[in-house]
Amino acid sequence: MKAFDYEYYHETKPHVNPRFPYNTYLCTIPLDFTNISTHWHDELELIIIKKGQGRTDVDLISHEVQAGDIILVLPGQLHSISQLCDQHMEYENILFDTRLLYSQHPDICTTEYLRPFFERRYFVPSHIHSGYPYYPGLYGCIKELDDICSRQEPYYELFIKSILYRFFFLLFSAQPRQEVSYAGEQNIQRMKKVLTFVEENYMHSVSLSDAAGFLNFSPSHFMRFFKQNMDMTFTEYLNDYRLSISAKYLSETEESILWVAEQCGFSNLSYFNRLFKRKFNMTPREYRSAR
Amino acid sequence: MKAFDYEYYHETKPHVNPRFPYNTYLCTIPLDFTNISTHWHDELELIIIKKGQGRTDVDLISHEVQAGDIILVLPGQLHSISQLCDQHMEYENILFDTRLLYSQHPDICTTEYLRPFFERRYFVPSHIHSGYPYYPGLYGCIKELDDICSRQEPYYELFIKSILYRFFFLLFSAQPRQEVSYAGEQNIQRMKKVLTFVEENYMHSVSLSDAAGFLNFSPSHFMRFFKQNMDMTFTEYLNDYRLSISAKYLSETEESILWVAEQCGFSNLSYFNRLFKRKFNMTPREYRSAR
Repeated sequence: MKAFDYEYYHETKPHVNPRFPYNTYLCTIPLDFTNISTHWHDELELIIIKKGQGRTDVDLISHEVQAGDIILVLPGQLHSISQLCDQHMEYENILFDTRLLYSQHPDICTTEYLRPFFERRYFVPSHIHSGYPYYPGLYGCIKELDDICSRQEPYYELFIKSILYRFFFLLFSAQPRQEVSYAGEQNIQRMKKVLTFVEENYMHSVSLSDAAGFLNFSPSHFMRFFKQNMDMTFTEYLNDYRLSISAKYLSETEESILWVAEQCGFSNLSYFNRLFKRKFNMTPREYRSAR
Repeated sequence: MKAFDYEYYHETKPHVNPRFPYNTYLCTIPLDFTNISTHWHDELELIIIKKGQGRTDVDLISHEVQAGDIILVLPGQLHSISQLCDQHMEYENILFDTRLLYSQHPDICTTEYLRPFFERRYFVPSHIHSGYPYYPGLYGCIKELDDICSRQEPYYELFIKSILYRFFFLLFSAQPRQEVSYAGEQNIQRMKKVLTFVEENYMHSVSLSDAAGFLNFSPSHFMRFFKQNMDMTFTEYLNDYRLSISAKYLSETEESILWVAEQCGFSNLSYFNRLFKRKFNMTPREYRSAR
């Protein structure tokens, strides 16, 4: 079982249409969960802060975000969302398959503008806030997307596409293309390796040395590398990942809580219970009955 | 040589980009020519009347049009544009390859909305005028297209796509889908056969009986059929087609006017000169030096 399926994090999926891979979700931190740990996926994601403040990381760079901000996460970019101090944050996720915007006819929009951008051959900043050029236009696009999705009139998918093209037109117009700096790219690739290692081994007993060895790092070097890039220790990340999986088991199976804890690599039930309550603000039993 | 290449009818092609098959043209009737005879092509065409009044035919149905009207011509639809009495008309043509709007990912927009419509499996009226639902929104799209094309900012092709998706969203939202009536379809197919016959034989001596025989019609039946559907006689159409080709030869070659007339099936030079002047408001010689 893998975490970071959005189905898990979001119990309602209001706009799912298999014929149109575009979805929106609403979340509240810390009400729904305290954080979404670093992960990546093939969809493009827009994170729109609706209320409050919080923190998002994109490709290992932190952004303090507040109501009105838009975070752009390209396919494959590492990202996480977390609570900032005691702040509360409501946000919306928009996720879509970028191939929606590729034309069957290989036109200039596809080959010169969108594909190179979605494949991260050039970039624009991830953090779009009120000081950003064309911000009102970009935020206007988001409002129109929300509006059309809530009404779901016939043919609304055509209008979504219309707005997405406008969004990227404005985004690219806002500033000249910048070549990608490869300085941080090696760290990002290393971090993806570690996260994949966790995904494949969380159910076993995993030590810091195991993970460090996987990158050919010494344990102390690995510890510093992980903390520096992820702003949490490797053990914190591993536990968080295990808790995400456990929540999935709790809501999708009838297995005992002990079984769930063990499946997720927790050998101590009371330790599992304590960590679970800290992340989800309720006990595993409460979590299961609330779902 | 074939007529009805838009390159011929329009000496300037301001927005041609082989990487983005979307073009606009401005024309004035009768200044540029008195009419564009019935023809068809694979591109979708929008005819937007800018000033004055005139007439357009789409799939053998006539529409009197005036400033502000939009005529929608789907790929493969027969259409013509002509002068109405002594009226003057300025109009814009927008032509584009419908595959620009088909997605690489076969989403609902492509498979359920756009492709069935562009392939004429259902329809909306061709004549969009101020009494049409959503007319202001549709005309607003045209104005935005004109505006963005005249400025050609970087990435403007993305904005064109955005507007085209909005245009079809509004168009489809304006009214329920209607199934295509096949009543007129047989006549349209017959007419396409005749027009193809002209295209392939204009350079020879062609009689009414030849064309009638091609459809297995008697000459008198064919004469009525042609006049009824095209609102002109077969001979008028044949001459008009020949004149279009002759104009193309005049501007693209250095051959003598006699040679041009003969190549286009005119055996009598003064007859050719007289017809040419009537269509183009200038002599062949004046036409050549004006190009």
